[in-house]
Amino acid sequence: MTDFPHSEYRQRVTKAQDRMAECALDALFLCTEAELRYFTGFRTLFWQSPTRPWFLVIPKTGDPIAVIPSIGADLMHRTWIRDIRCWASPAPDDEGVSLLLDALTGCARIGVPMGQESSLRMPLGDFEKLRRGLNAEIVDATPLIKSLRMIKSEAEVAKIKDICQIGSAAFARAGALFRPGQPLNEAFRAFKIALLEEGAEDVPYLVGGAGPGGYGDVISPADHTPLCEGDILMLDTGATLDGYFCDFDRNFAIGRTDETAGAAYRNLWAATEAGLLAARPGVSCANLFEAMAAELPEAGSAVGRFGHGLGMQLTEWPSIAANDPTVLKPGMVMTLEPSFEFAPGKMMVHEENILITEGAPVLLTSRAAPELPVI
Amino acid sequence: MTDFPHSEYRQRVTKAQDRMAECALDALFLCTEAELRYFTGFRTLFWQSPTRPWFLVIPKTGDPIAVIPSIGADLMHRTWIRDIRCWASPAPDDEGVSLLLDALTGCARIGVPMGQESSLRMPLGDFEKLRRGLNAEIVDATPLIKSLRMIKSEAEVAKIKDICQIGSAAFARAGALFRPGQPLNEAFRAFKIALLEEGAEDVPYLVGGAGPGGYGDVISPADHTPLCEGDILMLDTGATLDGYFCDFDRNFAIGRTDETAGAAYRNLWAATEAGLLAARPGVSCANLFEAMAAELPEAGSAVGRFGHGLGMQLTEWPSIAANDPTVLKPGMVMTLEPSFEFAPGKMMVHEENILITEGAPVLLTSRAAPELPVI
Repeated sequence: MTDFPHSEYRQRVTKAQDRMAECALDALFLCTEAELRYFTGFRTLFWQSPTRPWFLVIPKTGDPIAVIPSIGADLMHRTWIRDIRCWASPAPDDEGVSLLLDALTGCARIGVPMGQESSLRMPLGDFEKLRRGLNAEIVDATPLIKSLRMIKSEAEVAKIKDICQIGSAAFARAGALFRPGQPLNEAFRAFKIALLEEGAEDVPYLVGGAGPGGYGDVISPADHTPLCEGDILMLDTGATLDGYFCDFDRNFAIGRTDETAGAAYRNLWAATEAGLLAARPGVSCANLFEAMAAELPEAGSAVGRFGHGLGMQLTEWPSIAANDPTVLKPGMVMTLEPSFEFAPGKMMVHEENILITEGAPVLLTSRAAPELPVI
Repeated sequence: MTDFPHSEYRQRVTKAQDRMAECALDALFLCTEAELRYFTGFRTLFWQSPTRPWFLVIPKTGDPIAVIPSIGADLMHRTWIRDIRCWASPAPDDEGVSLLLDALTGCARIGVPMGQESSLRMPLGDFEKLRRGLNAEIVDATPLIKSLRMIKSEAEVAKIKDICQIGSAAFARAGALFRPGQPLNEAFRAFKIALLEEGAEDVPYLVGGAGPGGYGDVISPADHTPLCEGDILMLDTGATLDGYFCDFDRNFAIGRTDETAGAAYRNLWAATEAGLLAARPGVSCANLFEAMAAELPEAGSAVGRFGHGLGMQLTEWPSIAANDPTVLKPGMVMTLEPSFEFAPGKMMVHEENILITEGAPVLLTSRAAPELPVI
């Protein structure tokens, strides 16, 4: 009833406990969707509702303890977790805190993700109540979680590859989906439907832009502006399958090509090629960034980095950035995402998804065309 | 370029500042999607990426200060916010903290949402760095934010009504969308496509269940199990338009009706009717809960409450629950969501969306049929 065999989750917990021993941690305390799913297999869209917090305690030995609202008991019982402690939520006076105090009793050093890219998906007031009640040392567990989650298992890679292929199949239909006169939000809607038709389970993320000769922004929601001949259209999709993401984009010229945009496209295609050549185990993210930057006529990135990890979240550690020293290892799934501003107010972004292996990386997406496609 | 006229956001900030004065707050510090969007109009799916934190400071007088990654500068400039302070993110060494210290300098009492239903969408380590650097009193701002967000403006209600009607139009096509032999995940996919075709911008939430004579769980993802004659199928959707949610469900009998399920359906329909009669200004959520519970043959709720607030999030304060004393006021948008376990392992949930007015509530959804529909 979980996305992977129970053995996969057990292995993850065992690895976590090995590292906990190295850090002398008595327990890990987790409250975020990705972490609970990673260790238990508990997957639900119900996290959309902010009402109820959900907790997992991984002790230094033995199996994890789920401390969750009773509405999730049935689903949690279908995972491999056996120690499930529930309360009837919403319960404003005690939203799981006393159950947590009990589960963490006797722990002197507790790891909590509190570093880069982490968040606290519970009321801060309750966390402080918990901290006061525990009288334990709280240690940042971000490096531990990051080191585990960055390396994907074969089973995880298979899911990411499947959704990348679904995304590629949807992009292959671009010529039939997008047309001059179509409002951008209708183009987005058509593309979401195409992704679902091709087999995506969900499309939590679809952004992009369009404009004459280029677009200026890549995080805005689509508006009603109609596509025009001469526009450059970009769609960047984070679709999911069994809770795993693809994250890549494609650029199209509407009706006719534009030489400036065409040249920018070739620069970015070359930068991605350079990334594909450079993305080898032992290479740092900073070096990978430099290898891609060398192909671009302009310094820096339009979006702050040239790619990132990918998996249960649209973006994960590490960042392909000059300030990220993380060394690539086999099993990492990454996006290569070079970008630059090729004219004032006009940027372009390319993106592919790859798996780092012992040798050359494996492309998970179907490689973008080497020339800007006209549709 | 924002979903509402700038005056709407200004009014929200003015109201917040009025309440800040009552609480003697020098500033509000916000870092969550709904709160940033509520006060600025900044709307993007980019929050899916956990990499970058986003901040808003509302001073006791004057306009808000956005402290955000530079990738969001362009979009933020298209809102009414003029004081926009950016840093190049990701920046592991200083992810906005020094900009925040500067923006909050001189504030002795700072409101931070840290109560019921809140979370901290930034690294806890950075929040603690900020707290140490500020040396200010940190006060829970949840009651303040809740009191504002619970009362919807006419413009907000119009958006929720539109998405409720889109949801109703998609449910009206159930007979053509669902059939015996169809795997449940295909049924879900077909329904998502129908929602998009009817005009939904997104479908962040779709859960449900199906089983012979009833379903046992309402938060699981759909699996491959085919729908069978005699199944009761339920879909519960949180679709969005301009970032506003509907949240309601519908139940269907596949092929033929089942008397036990049919009776449960009538109980829940009657409980919703009782809710529609009772949902008047001045009535407490606890009393509304009791009015609905009186129509059901079993005590309690299968999901912990009989409805909740609705708007920018799938679920918002308050809860229609025995332990929620919140008093209904005109302008609240609520779900009425009675549920009970009508046979061992079989539950049923009904849900409608309503607007609280000075008189009778206004149904925003098209009312469910009084008898269990057979498709």
